[in-house]
Amino acid sequence: MNGPMLATIPFDDDKLHEECGLFGIYGTEDASAHTALGLHALQHRGQEAAGIVSFDGQQFHGHRGQGLVGDIFGNEATITALPGFLAIGHNRYSTTGGTIVRNIQPLFAECEFGGFAVAHNGNLTNALTLRKQLIRRGSLFQSTTDTEVITHLVATNGNRTVEDRFIDALYQVEGAYSIVAMTNDKLIGVRDPFGVRPLLLGQLGPAFILASETCALDIIGATFVRDILPGEMVVIDRAGLTSLKPFKITQSRFCIFEMIYFARPDSSVEGRGVYAARRRIGAELAREAHVPADLVVPVPDSGVPAAIGYAAESNIPFELGIIRSHYVGRTFIEPTDRIRHLGVKLKHNANRAYLDGKRVVLVDDSIVRGTTSKRIVEMVRGAGATEVHMRISSPPTTNSCFYGIDTPERGELLAAQHNVAEMAALIGVDSLAFISIDGLYRAMGEARRNTLKPQFCDACFTGEYPIPLVDREGGERSTQLSLLAEPA
Amino acid sequence: MNGPMLATIPFDDDKLHEECGLFGIYGTEDASAHTALGLHALQHRGQEAAGIVSFDGQQFHGHRGQGLVGDIFGNEATITALPGFLAIGHNRYSTTGGTIVRNIQPLFAECEFGGFAVAHNGNLTNALTLRKQLIRRGSLFQSTTDTEVITHLVATNGNRTVEDRFIDALYQVEGAYSIVAMTNDKLIGVRDPFGVRPLLLGQLGPAFILASETCALDIIGATFVRDILPGEMVVIDRAGLTSLKPFKITQSRFCIFEMIYFARPDSSVEGRGVYAARRRIGAELAREAHVPADLVVPVPDSGVPAAIGYAAESNIPFELGIIRSHYVGRTFIEPTDRIRHLGVKLKHNANRAYLDGKRVVLVDDSIVRGTTSKRIVEMVRGAGATEVHMRISSPPTTNSCFYGIDTPERGELLAAQHNVAEMAALIGVDSLAFISIDGLYRAMGEARRNTLKPQFCDACFTGEYPIPLVDREGGERSTQLSLLAEPA
Amino acid sequence: MNGPMLATIPFDDDKLHEECGLFGIYGTEDASAHTALGLHALQHRGQEAAGIVSFDGQQFHGHRGQGLVGDIFGNEATITALPGFLAIGHNRYSTTGGTIVRNIQPLFAECEFGGFAVAHNGNLTNALTLRKQLIRRGSLFQSTTDTEVITHLVATNGNRTVEDRFIDALYQVEGAYSIVAMTNDKLIGVRDPFGVRPLLLGQLGPAFILASETCALDIIGATFVRDILPGEMVVIDRAGLTSLKPFKITQSRFCIFEMIYFARPDSSVEGRGVYAARRRIGAELAREAHVPADLVVPVPDSGVPAAIGYAAESNIPFELGIIRSHYVGRTFIEPTDRIRHLGVKLKHNANRAYLDGKRVVLVDDSIVRGTTSKRIVEMVRGAGATEVHMRISSPPTTNSCFYGIDTPERGELLAAQHNVAEMAALIGVDSLAFISIDGLYRAMGEARRNTLKPQFCDACFTGEYPIPLVDREGGERSTQLSLLAEPA
Amino acid sequence: MNGPMLATIPFDDDKLHEECGLFGIYGTEDASAHTALGLHALQHRGQEAAGIVSFDGQQFHGHRGQGLVGDIFGNEATITALPGFLAIGHNRYSTTGGTIVRNIQPLFAECEFGGFAVAHNGNLTNALTLRKQLIRRGSLFQSTTDTEVITHLVATNGNRTVEDRFIDALYQVEGAYSIVAMTNDKLIGVRDPFGVRPLLLGQLGPAFILASETCALDIIGATFVRDILPGEMVVIDRAGLTSLKPFKITQSRFCIFEMIYFARPDSSVEGRGVYAARRRIGAELAREAHVPADLVVPVPDSGVPAAIGYAAESNIPFELGIIRSHYVGRTFIEPTDRIRHLGVKLKHNANRAYLDGKRVVLVDDSIVRGTTSKRIVEMVRGAGATEVHMRISSPPTTNSCFYGIDTPERGELLAAQHNVAEMAALIGVDSLAFISIDGLYRAMGEARRNTLKPQFCDACFTGEYPIPLVDREGGERSTQLSLLAEPA
Repeated sequence: MNGPMLATIPFDDDKLHEECGLFGIYGTEDASAHTALGLHALQHRGQEAAGIVSFDGQQFHGHRGQGLVGDIFGNEATITALPGFLAIGHNRYSTTGGTIVRNIQPLFAECEFGGFAVAHNGNLTNALTLRKQLIRRGSLFQSTTDTEVITHLVATNGNRTVEDRFIDALYQVEGAYSIVAMTNDKLIGVRDPFGVRPLLLGQLGPAFILASETCALDIIGATFVRDILPGEMVVIDRAGLTSLKPFKITQSRFCIFEMIYFARPDSSVEGRGVYAARRRIGAELAREAHVPADLVVPVPDSGVPAAIGYAAESNIPFELGIIRSHYVGRTFIEPTDRIRHLGVKLKHNANRAYLDGKRVVLVDDSIVRGTTSKRIVEMVRGAGATEVHMRISSPPTTNSCFYGIDTPERGELLAAQHNVAEMAALIGVDSLAFISIDGLYRAMGEARRNTLKPQFCDACFTGEYPIPLVDREGGERSTQLSLLAEPA
Repeated sequence: MNGPMLATIPFDDDKLHEECGLFGIYGTEDASAHTALGLHALQHRGQEAAGIVSFDGQQFHGHRGQGLVGDIFGNEATITALPGFLAIGHNRYSTTGGTIVRNIQPLFAECEFGGFAVAHNGNLTNALTLRKQLIRRGSLFQSTTDTEVITHLVATNGNRTVEDRFIDALYQVEGAYSIVAMTNDKLIGVRDPFGVRPLLLGQLGPAFILASETCALDIIGATFVRDILPGEMVVIDRAGLTSLKPFKITQSRFCIFEMIYFARPDSSVEGRGVYAARRRIGAELAREAHVPADLVVPVPDSGVPAAIGYAAESNIPFELGIIRSHYVGRTFIEPTDRIRHLGVKLKHNANRAYLDGKRVVLVDDSIVRGTTSKRIVEMVRGAGATEVHMRISSPPTTNSCFYGIDTPERGELLAAQHNVAEMAALIGVDSLAFISIDGLYRAMGEARRNTLKPQFCDACFTGEYPIPLVDREGGERSTQLSLLAEPA
Repeated sequence: MNGPMLATIPFDDDKLHEECGLFGIYGTEDASAHTALGLHALQHRGQEAAGIVSFDGQQFHGHRGQGLVGDIFGNEATITALPGFLAIGHNRYSTTGGTIVRNIQPLFAECEFGGFAVAHNGNLTNALTLRKQLIRRGSLFQSTTDTEVITHLVATNGNRTVEDRFIDALYQVEGAYSIVAMTNDKLIGVRDPFGVRPLLLGQLGPAFILASETCALDIIGATFVRDILPGEMVVIDRAGLTSLKPFKITQSRFCIFEMIYFARPDSSVEGRGVYAARRRIGAELAREAHVPADLVVPVPDSGVPAAIGYAAESNIPFELGIIRSHYVGRTFIEPTDRIRHLGVKLKHNANRAYLDGKRVVLVDDSIVRGTTSKRIVEMVRGAGATEVHMRISSPPTTNSCFYGIDTPERGELLAAQHNVAEMAALIGVDSLAFISIDGLYRAMGEARRNTLKPQFCDACFTGEYPIPLVDREGGERSTQLSLLAEPA
Repeated sequence: MNGPMLATIPFDDDKLHEECGLFGIYGTEDASAHTALGLHALQHRGQEAAGIVSFDGQQFHGHRGQGLVGDIFGNEATITALPGFLAIGHNRYSTTGGTIVRNIQPLFAECEFGGFAVAHNGNLTNALTLRKQLIRRGSLFQSTTDTEVITHLVATNGNRTVEDRFIDALYQVEGAYSIVAMTNDKLIGVRDPFGVRPLLLGQLGPAFILASETCALDIIGATFVRDILPGEMVVIDRAGLTSLKPFKITQSRFCIFEMIYFARPDSSVEGRGVYAARRRIGAELAREAHVPADLVVPVPDSGVPAAIGYAAESNIPFELGIIRSHYVGRTFIEPTDRIRHLGVKLKHNANRAYLDGKRVVLVDDSIVRGTTSKRIVEMVRGAGATEVHMRISSPPTTNSCFYGIDTPERGELLAAQHNVAEMAALIGVDSLAFISIDGLYRAMGEARRNTLKPQFCDACFTGEYPIPLVDREGGERSTQLSLLAEPA
């Protein structure tokens, strides 16, 4: 089989979007080439822009651009212009700050002590409040990212060492963050005290690596060492690795949606294999919400592992009933009015010959606005399916995320506005079921959700936000961060 | 699940490549927009270049470019510049003629009777012989394609009607071809007498469509009518559709590799659903070459349907043990010498957590040179698999194709140089098995291969070429078709 | 002095435009680099597009593009891709055939005898008639240029040698032409029997050169040998240069406008230094049309040499009263409605401090539509000039050119619609005078115009066309040369 | 006459380079379109990059790019994206700070009081010292320009009004500067106390304009009002124009090289018409250094006005003996080794037919390294000139400029290393003369140079620097302003 079958596409408007991937490496020639490869493996975490900063012992070198890692860093000349044994990189799907060049990370600052580059996955919940204070003191912001707050806090901080300046800065910020940073001689990684976003440590010969997921180690043949702990800061330099624990210890609250959808299926994060976890969710779902049917069909590509689990558990054959084209970029022919009535199927096509006359269980990972789900169900029915039952491998998404995931406002979330029966009717299915919250925790290997101290951040399903939403509660608006208009 | 999981990539150097996709439409406004969408659905048949010619009642309009359909035709302005009710389009992976702009089809000719545009899927086996004759007469060739022979034969032919000129021209050519052509008022489709390459007829309201596969009908919501018959020419104009049968009837010899690999799994070609056929090959393979194992793992993406069939028949679980990144373009970082030793895994990654300690059946569609297979087996073993058994859903590829498929010279085909045991050793598997030729025919719904009159063209497996290889046997060389060097 | 002062700009909509520059060289390494330099020196003869074809002993190599020579050929890689000891080049401002890539010369043809490349300066007056005949025979045209008629005539001609085929082809065409052509082993140059357009022979060590003007020899340090004679064909190959005289001898009718405006002032053409000739026209004009004044001001840049001659003869100071910006490309800000009222002076600015209170003689080379003249006079008066007298170094342009110069239709030529007094009023000057036709001939060194056998082609001033206008008189229209629309 | 005759080219490696042009406008719709036109008229002051910032009453809008103004701002869409009634613009040939995007002005800062944009012509002589102090306090620099020092001084300053903050900042800087700045509601212009660089005030209906030269007023039809005075700050807002005089009054020291070379000949600066001044220098030179000759030939284009003055005074005919091609971009064919021996004449060509056998006076504006002069003299002799006498319309350039002009180090200045006789020998002329310093002042309308209080800054000729060179004397090095390497 050739061509478009199970391909994912870079961008689906009706999915939640991970915002960032991080990579850093200390102690190898070609640090930038390694970083570019790592970012490529993390491409699913951000397809809007990417950047790398390296240090060659004398100077920092930076390059950043909009688009995919391969387009930005995929030529020898670009990599050659980023020499050094130390580099950090970042790719992003914008959360705060539009996707303009001045917002692409890593950000770089020239401080009294030397250069300081920083890349950030997550979201600071008091960034606007801090930004105002800093501007009042005369700090000039160049970007509209929350991350730049950190560089100014570091630059204006009076402490002697970079580590102390950095820790002091982090004491002032609230939010979810995993950060990689670098100075003239150090690679630094840190996670917020709840450990909401992933960050892990790898090794390749004598070189240390920090990365968001294990797939970024696999691509360069590096070995996984351990996860960075919640609230831990690691400092890597000539002397090796030092672990600092500047924050008081709290319950880890790793983002459960990383397990459901964001992370790559071949990654392990926070000690769990992602593919296996998703397959177990599918099996739980089959137990919780069985329905007689002829075929289990994944909504490609994100529904595939759960569908395999569902099919195996329910003993209904797993079949590719929907084909997805991977050749779809973002800019393909906007159907003109005259052809819009055709209901052009650019992204998906039903495997008509196979669905005709069948009872189908459709498995997907989530329903956000429900628009894509509705179209897919129509398509499957149009191909002759006699029954369509939808099974979702996450609980209903009822709340927005403020910790670094791009989610629509609550008003746009289908599950925030409707109960399951209403949703089933809107989407047009014969039945609809979501995994239960406890079923989800069971698939993660927990007995159940600990309601007093939940083992994960699941705010998007439960509305329980572990970290205060300072700006939001203080009424800070993000609508005009800068007086400088962003280019269209 | 997000990101790179089961994605195909546009280009794999160790696969055979289909050379062309065809689309034509008569009788709708926005004929070019429909054609662009149709070519997009046929993108897997050719990713190097694409072109469209339209006719608006007064003038022909043409645009062609290198790259993907979405990049070439994905903006409104380009489509708007191609007005008309009649259009044909072509995408190509070059077979004869380098991928230079002057070779991109459709070719257009200004003849005494008006304009004539032509697009061709297949390969003419006496093109060089005819080219020399035409040059001797003073015909000036602009491209190095075999297709241009047809336009000159039509232009210099003395017959009165375009149909007669075209038929006369086809009487002189040998080879495998499906062709769509257009004049000021007609859309014409024709298949060679053996029907080696596909071409089918669809309808969308009053408009007639010609396309290589049904997926090009689905994308615009058109209805499949029937396949164009081997040796049939259909002429579509204001008066409707006329079927001509200018050739004497022979046994159909449809290319069996279309069923195994080239066609999209959601297409039907020559009356057969492609996905179901591949799934049946997998099931046959499980019966012919069973092996005890823990997992059936497809080599993504082309091995997936056969792996599903194999898993279902053998009762071994189907699992995604290998993840393929769809973000890989052709031009990503050429690993420099310094990082080449890393064995960079740009395209595939093993699902390490799932393969460790398992006996694995790997299912793929074919082995060409064997280079990719070797790397994948190493990767699967590196992830901890205890046994690796490879099952291939085609017979050994022992011969080159001269009918429009890009194949390496025989000397580069692994199966032409080695028996199965040697191949197993070279690739590094514990066992290796190919579907038998009769098993393949059974999966196609035949009792067995009719050795006197084979139901398909299977020359790449058997060396039995149904159409004479005139140029090759006459010693014509294709190395310097033109005195004009092709740009690097 | 820095910046925009006396700069010419590539394009002025109110001037006549030369259509082409030619260059060819045989017998040096780096033939293409020499050709690119020669075309650069001839850039004033055509700024729309340029092309080069070279031959390396095995293959022809071609490259062509839209824009300036420096942009198309100004990088090493492009030149390196055009190896060989033999090359021809062409730059063009389109006359027949829109400026589309398929029309850019040299045209290349693959004939029975080998490759044949051709580049043409001039215009064939029976091209449409011949084109129709050739299409009827089955020749497929790729361009809409008149030049392609020649390649088809050569390709379909039965003669044995290329020279004979080429001469036979030229016997069939009518028009004004200088042509450079090349085959696998020959460089060929030819001028029409009247010698309307220039072509000359140079030498650089052992290499022979053909070029439109001497400035193309100067740039590479080559020596001028002689003009190619009207009706002469020179064939340069390993054996040296052979001169053929296939046409019967007629009176030479070199284009007099080459002397007035087209040729570069540092060139010599047809044995005359261009700068000196223009200076002499200015002096004649001062004698014919003296007026008391304070300053002689050229309309930059084309009026400068004549203004110097006028000033010297009249003893009125020559001063730069108008400054022209050379930074103006064609695409600068189209003044929006809102700023159009500003009368934006993108191209010219009056030297206000110097013109105020002065009586000014403005010297220009010609008046075509008169639009630019009117604006310039307004600007000069706006700067405070008390009197403005315009002196033109050509007779009134009353007729269109059909021999290779882009001229408006007669109806748009100001001098075809109005007498001198009316023109003066329309342009807004206190007095207006043109050089007389005999004054012009005197400045060329002739006693007067020989009315029976004029020494030059002066059809644009006199309406006496030496070469029959076959297509025009036969009613051939050029509006739809091709059924294929040209891209916008 | 068409084509390359007296054209200037954007860039000559052997000239001094002005560094910047300034434009600002308050009180008109389409402020950005006006600014783009103004910058276009000032293109000769900086061809490397340009930027515009506008304010629309709500937001600032900015765009900046590398290249010519017409390329960066010459399309409607770019201008439309810069709405507002207030705009400032800048073009630059880099002095401090490489030509990288982050260094392109205007710089924009978000301060507590709102936005602040600034564009600067000149050079601060204590910028490095201040930069270090600011970094120590935690200010993060984004560029390597001296101008950014000003924005940080303004941002961190405690005063209440922008004017007071700005004046306070200027009290701390040393150097030569003309500045245009803007806030949410004000356009501000200021010149340093010595008035080294130009800045003038114009009006267009109700709108006020600030610009470097009058040619930027002419292009949009605006009226010249007056020069901004040395040490004056003008603040333009809804209430009209306010003039502040925050500096104590000193002797004006306007840059005399603006009159000799930098300013456009059709401009008036500091109350003097530039063309007339240059013509007077030529006349002085003829009186000071007469020589019998046949022709006065300017080195185009910068030598033309002085040559006209020289010719008129000496009664030797002014003739165009050298033609300069304006089609030369910076990137034309780097002559390969194989053709370098040709002595390719890309930029200039001698008017061979006119120079042969003549005694020539060559007039140029300055000699920097002498490399171009040497080549031109060789070319003129090669064309047959019997004598070549060079006359220079400035005194010998013996010292570098630190006030905003790009000059080579002293060691590279020919006149710093050699006396006039040696220079004549090196350049290969029969005689060489420079205008005397008093002759130059006479041409400016002064009786002589006031040696106690010179009327102009003439440090490049005399070594008398009116403003302290703080960084230089303090040993500050500019070699590594930033730890971030600049892209190649």
